[in-house]
Amino acid sequence: MIDLREDYLRTRRFTGELCEPLAAEDYGVQAMPDCSPVKWNLAHTTWFFETFVLSGRDGYRRFDPTGAYEYLFNSYYNQVGPQFFRPNRGLLARPTVAEVYQYRQYVDQRVLHMLDAGEASGETAAVLRLGIHHEQQHQELLLTDLKFAWSLIPAPLRPIYRESKSRPSDGSGDLTWTEYPEGIACIGHDGPEFSYDNEGPRHRALVHACQLANRPVTNREYLAFIEDGGYHRPELWLSDGWATAQQQGWQAPLYWEQSEAGWLAMTLSGTRTLDPEEPVCHVSFFEADAYARWAGARLPTEQEWEMAAVYAPVAGNFAENGYFHPIAPGEGVPAKMFGDVWEWTSSAYLPYPGYRPPAGALGEYNAKFMNGQYVLRGGSCFTPESHIRPTYRNFFPPDKRWQCTGLRLAR
Amino acid sequence: MIDLREDYLRTRRFTGELCEPLAAEDYGVQAMPDCSPVKWNLAHTTWFFETFVLSGRDGYRRFDPTGAYEYLFNSYYNQVGPQFFRPNRGLLARPTVAEVYQYRQYVDQRVLHMLDAGEASGETAAVLRLGIHHEQQHQELLLTDLKFAWSLIPAPLRPIYRESKSRPSDGSGDLTWTEYPEGIACIGHDGPEFSYDNEGPRHRALVHACQLANRPVTNREYLAFIEDGGYHRPELWLSDGWATAQQQGWQAPLYWEQSEAGWLAMTLSGTRTLDPEEPVCHVSFFEADAYARWAGARLPTEQEWEMAAVYAPVAGNFAENGYFHPIAPGEGVPAKMFGDVWEWTSSAYLPYPGYRPPAGALGEYNAKFMNGQYVLRGGSCFTPESHIRPTYRNFFPPDKRWQCTGLRLAR
Amino acid sequence: MIDLREDYLRTRRFTGELCEPLAAEDYGVQAMPDCSPVKWNLAHTTWFFETFVLSGRDGYRRFDPTGAYEYLFNSYYNQVGPQFFRPNRGLLARPTVAEVYQYRQYVDQRVLHMLDAGEASGETAAVLRLGIHHEQQHQELLLTDLKFAWSLIPAPLRPIYRESKSRPSDGSGDLTWTEYPEGIACIGHDGPEFSYDNEGPRHRALVHACQLANRPVTNREYLAFIEDGGYHRPELWLSDGWATAQQQGWQAPLYWEQSEAGWLAMTLSGTRTLDPEEPVCHVSFFEADAYARWAGARLPTEQEWEMAAVYAPVAGNFAENGYFHPIAPGEGVPAKMFGDVWEWTSSAYLPYPGYRPPAGALGEYNAKFMNGQYVLRGGSCFTPESHIRPTYRNFFPPDKRWQCTGLRLAR
Amino acid sequence: MIDLREDYLRTRRFTGELCEPLAAEDYGVQAMPDCSPVKWNLAHTTWFFETFVLSGRDGYRRFDPTGAYEYLFNSYYNQVGPQFFRPNRGLLARPTVAEVYQYRQYVDQRVLHMLDAGEASGETAAVLRLGIHHEQQHQELLLTDLKFAWSLIPAPLRPIYRESKSRPSDGSGDLTWTEYPEGIACIGHDGPEFSYDNEGPRHRALVHACQLANRPVTNREYLAFIEDGGYHRPELWLSDGWATAQQQGWQAPLYWEQSEAGWLAMTLSGTRTLDPEEPVCHVSFFEADAYARWAGARLPTEQEWEMAAVYAPVAGNFAENGYFHPIAPGEGVPAKMFGDVWEWTSSAYLPYPGYRPPAGALGEYNAKFMNGQYVLRGGSCFTPESHIRPTYRNFFPPDKRWQCTGLRLAR
Repeated sequence: MIDLREDYLRTRRFTGELCEPLAAEDYGVQAMPDCSPVKWNLAHTTWFFETFVLSGRDGYRRFDPTGAYEYLFNSYYNQVGPQFFRPNRGLLARPTVAEVYQYRQYVDQRVLHMLDAGEASGETAAVLRLGIHHEQQHQELLLTDLKFAWSLIPAPLRPIYRESKSRPSDGSGDLTWTEYPEGIACIGHDGPEFSYDNEGPRHRALVHACQLANRPVTNREYLAFIEDGGYHRPELWLSDGWATAQQQGWQAPLYWEQSEAGWLAMTLSGTRTLDPEEPVCHVSFFEADAYARWAGARLPTEQEWEMAAVYAPVAGNFAENGYFHPIAPGEGVPAKMFGDVWEWTSSAYLPYPGYRPPAGALGEYNAKFMNGQYVLRGGSCFTPESHIRPTYRNFFPPDKRWQCTGLRLAR
Repeated sequence: MIDLREDYLRTRRFTGELCEPLAAEDYGVQAMPDCSPVKWNLAHTTWFFETFVLSGRDGYRRFDPTGAYEYLFNSYYNQVGPQFFRPNRGLLARPTVAEVYQYRQYVDQRVLHMLDAGEASGETAAVLRLGIHHEQQHQELLLTDLKFAWSLIPAPLRPIYRESKSRPSDGSGDLTWTEYPEGIACIGHDGPEFSYDNEGPRHRALVHACQLANRPVTNREYLAFIEDGGYHRPELWLSDGWATAQQQGWQAPLYWEQSEAGWLAMTLSGTRTLDPEEPVCHVSFFEADAYARWAGARLPTEQEWEMAAVYAPVAGNFAENGYFHPIAPGEGVPAKMFGDVWEWTSSAYLPYPGYRPPAGALGEYNAKFMNGQYVLRGGSCFTPESHIRPTYRNFFPPDKRWQCTGLRLAR
Repeated sequence: MIDLREDYLRTRRFTGELCEPLAAEDYGVQAMPDCSPVKWNLAHTTWFFETFVLSGRDGYRRFDPTGAYEYLFNSYYNQVGPQFFRPNRGLLARPTVAEVYQYRQYVDQRVLHMLDAGEASGETAAVLRLGIHHEQQHQELLLTDLKFAWSLIPAPLRPIYRESKSRPSDGSGDLTWTEYPEGIACIGHDGPEFSYDNEGPRHRALVHACQLANRPVTNREYLAFIEDGGYHRPELWLSDGWATAQQQGWQAPLYWEQSEAGWLAMTLSGTRTLDPEEPVCHVSFFEADAYARWAGARLPTEQEWEMAAVYAPVAGNFAENGYFHPIAPGEGVPAKMFGDVWEWTSSAYLPYPGYRPPAGALGEYNAKFMNGQYVLRGGSCFTPESHIRPTYRNFFPPDKRWQCTGLRLAR
Repeated sequence: MIDLREDYLRTRRFTGELCEPLAAEDYGVQAMPDCSPVKWNLAHTTWFFETFVLSGRDGYRRFDPTGAYEYLFNSYYNQVGPQFFRPNRGLLARPTVAEVYQYRQYVDQRVLHMLDAGEASGETAAVLRLGIHHEQQHQELLLTDLKFAWSLIPAPLRPIYRESKSRPSDGSGDLTWTEYPEGIACIGHDGPEFSYDNEGPRHRALVHACQLANRPVTNREYLAFIEDGGYHRPELWLSDGWATAQQQGWQAPLYWEQSEAGWLAMTLSGTRTLDPEEPVCHVSFFEADAYARWAGARLPTEQEWEMAAVYAPVAGNFAENGYFHPIAPGEGVPAKMFGDVWEWTSSAYLPYPGYRPPAGALGEYNAKFMNGQYVLRGGSCFTPESHIRPTYRNFFPPDKRWQCTGLRLAR
């Protein structure tokens, strides 16, 4: 259990470290219903451990005996109980930030005590492990929600989360294609390491012959789409995508601004000139799909992506780097599948053949969201490195742009 | 070209026959944005022939030289031009019904003249054929839209479309399962007969071992789900499905009413006692999915369905029957795959491997809707029989219930 | 009772005459929730007589014994019973137009029989009289709703209600001012002639010294406001007015269109060049108020208006004229207070001192709408002449423009 | 200028004192679009002094030279410049609370320096005085917005603003009526003391004979309305009021909760048993109007109220008391017109005869809101005592309940 203890501690501490640059005022804002306040993220991940690991144990007394935390910090588990109305999470002046940190400490002490006492084996260890990965997901959300919240602050007042490390742009090299012949691939996770339930069961799938690009689409390439009228040509778009783009007035990826000196992009290190060699990010599925059509290509299926990714090292630009922004891949670098940007696939987020969700409330973790979303692969510069693997299936609705989402071409 | 002429004439005439029971007042109503007025359906199908078959021909003069029809009756073809705002189709007092029928006659004369002159070969014949199938789709929509519009009329004033043929209920027999071993199936359409672009290209697909029910779920079976609290147990539902069911107050399929004497169902032949042996209809994908989960089963994928359907005769209860309602299948009848109700599959409506939409505006026919919808198979009691085939892919959003939609179980 | 019989007959017939130019398709359209279908107007006015005059009488049997009409054609009388959802009035394919005309005939026969039998005295006669005036209100609404519905039809298909009578524009003369000294005026209706409850009780009111313009504001004058940036200067507008104008994109009165040849206005006689000498019409209270502020003046209070109007003849351009559009007043004409356009006053629609609504459901006729609306005076070119009088208080919300509304300046 | 200096200092300090019980988390919440965050209130009142008093002065440098504050803290002055989108005020993590307090200090120093230097005379002094009264309005809003925000916190976590002073309920005495004969009253403010522009010009008005109640309606009296089905009888309500009550599910005043032990009311001192003798508060105009109709009475006009109030002492339960809740008036106490609850009148908020708003941006302070609102009189337990006077015209829309609003009967 030593590594579980270490993982737990390291993950919980990393959450704290991510909050170090924040002012008290940053903890409470919910900038749109999809986002949650930082404070809520801190409490919800703690609630997860309390609810699914501690609450059934002999002698455990909840931090908040009134039941209010149970209600406020339950995200969506109907089998646990009712939930506070999600769009109003930003209206809660209580608990305070200090109380939330006390809550974290309270739960940490009891989890660690349990681990030290050797009482976390089997199912308990598995749920603890799930809670650790769950917290990692919220580390990413905490940062992307913060970025969105800060984008609403008028520019002269907008804070810097972390100064940008100086880094010469390395270029991105030519886009090259790798060919894959048709074959039966084994898709999905199997084995003793952690994975989410939605990554299994491992199963055979027929994958048709295809070509995949060696790297994600860059800003330079995406700019060519914009300059060719990409946002004004309905024939390039899905019908829902075109409607969304019109309603929301999309003219470029989220966080791009046009200035007299050219395109700028807002980052957590401030607004700066767009680096044309970086992977394009903060595009919706609809934009990714339209770009691919314009480029005479398409998005890969998740099976194609996974087939290619199993041979690639899980290395790249992750959260631990502290960039919190994609970086140009450099010239002549071998195919890269991980980090920088989540890559939209053309696959709807659906259950794998033979999938069955776990029994009980934890069955709600992934299963009930298998509608109306697309699978993303590979992790981003906001994702903790230890969180990702080739079989990892992230998912978001096709109109969302506040995650660090880009694309890789297939054909 | 003789059969094309006959098909054209027969299809156009059948549209007229379907309108015979209507009063003048029935032509203009648009009961919700998803629906269109009967009048609009009549004009739009005509617009399709005028735009894609006639308008490019030497010497053809449009029926409406002002350009207004071109704008009003363009459903969604951006490459043809802008479109009248869809939710307002019911607000148009002009053109009148008589003018729309003149429009139909005008276009029919010119199409027939073209056919008689032997000027419809190759691409022109193909588009004519497409237009015929397109009109068949609108025959179904015309009836389902009418049914929905009439459901809003207070019951004592609600008209009868066609008296119900007397028909003893035949029972539905026990649900039995057919086993299919894992294998590589050939999915999709190929060959000289008509099909929509979205049915191809024909391709290999690995289909896992599965069992399919011999017939759709019946009202009796669905009632057991209701009585077991199916509409009140979130754990049975997808998250979006549960939210929709709550918002819309779903307690039963569309058109069901609870009376002191038990459940009633509104049909085009009036409201009558629910026949427990009929296939359940007017359920959304969300309800179908929840029912299947409750039943310990699941919906089939479209590949599973197609694999089973290629061996079944394309026969059943279709529009030509004049029932316009599902009928009980009878005892001891072999597996039936067609007619009665469209069957929801678990497959998101996405392009087949290697799919490319046709060039030009007709590429918008199917391709741009490949998002957020699910595939339905098999046709319904509102579908013309000659319209359907094993590879046919219908698609609707998961929350829609006004089409004649039911389900078949898989496991 | 002879005149009551004549009034009844004449009013009911005039409704029919107003419908003569209509196609069957014009009867069912509800172009926005504020409007009602022509068919509904025809049935509702009949419902009024049936409900408040006939239904309590011995032996009277309702035309529709099922109760559906009672529900469908009750506009807003909670004390009569529940009402069909107003925004859905246009979705009702039943009853048909023919059935509605039968309903009118059925009720007419019984009302006339009652009158011929001398059974309509006292309270019954009073309610009959109210029903006649009520029907006159709906004659105006029928035409203004129709005009709005037709405005949604693309121009080349838009029908002509009635050909415009040829009429040279007479000019409008200079705007002159009439002075009124401060005094105690007697405001409101009293006496045996018909009036609505909201016109009383007659009461004393202190009216401050003021000046009133001799005629309404003309298109020429209003154009100067537009050309001076009136729609782009928030300082001229009430806060709610500015917000409304921005949201709805107002740039001119409703039905105005800018063409290369200058401003056009849509009328029931077709779209034609704007006559600068006509009174401006189809402006909201917000626009009227902004115009007056721009002109260094203000709108009159309803007391000021009434004080001036009691001395003016109730003559002008009313519905019987058949113009259905304001006409230029001509040069050197004495002050005109009636016809052409309803004149917005600065008075909120509130009860007069000592006002008490009648007992029962008819107390809902006017009283419950005394919130959020402004008083209009004088009648319009859509108003039947016998419907109007100096004490008449019409009322509409400040953002509505589909009535024939203009303004007169005060200071 | 000594008193101006003192008034300024006292008012600014009182704002600070009102914030003493707040946690950092309470400053940023905007619980609904009508509310503003405490932080925004603090900055906006400071912006008012900076913009209208300091910014035009030689050598003055704005605290925020970037222009962001000018934009963020401009409430609605179009003539000053564009404004940040009001419903998003709660999404701004910057400026921080500390920065806002620095802003206050910065402006205070410069205003005081200006006063000490004798440079605030004439127009400048008048605007300073206006700014002081403006800040008092926001003191009240700050507290009522806070109360609303806290009402959204689940009860066990809800903080106490200030412990309730112990206070025996004194009873409310019988409701008695004072008669006023018809007469010409002088309405509105005149003279050297401060008043808002909307209180003038002073003018004659004919006020009809009436009777006014000696005290506001109590909880006990209002409960009788509830128990008599007041919230379920549409005939008691204005049409808009009934629609609002249904949509929002009103069953009692805001902040009332039904418990097994009877009615409770949430206050800034916690939730406690409803005291039946206190004036009812947090009722909308619609509820006040319905109650009065039920009671066989009506609301007073603002002229009637003012006529009665000029003879009453401006004394009562105001913010300085520190109760922040209405208190029972006690038995046998003479007529009270001030404090406890704002009293809805039946008068639409409209300009007085001869009213002209001040030139420039400050003309927007009151004038542009003269639509769709009703006048309230008398001040509440959240109003600073020095802020109120008999001619004071407060105004709110008829559906709002989060202000401390009650009613007095007239007949």
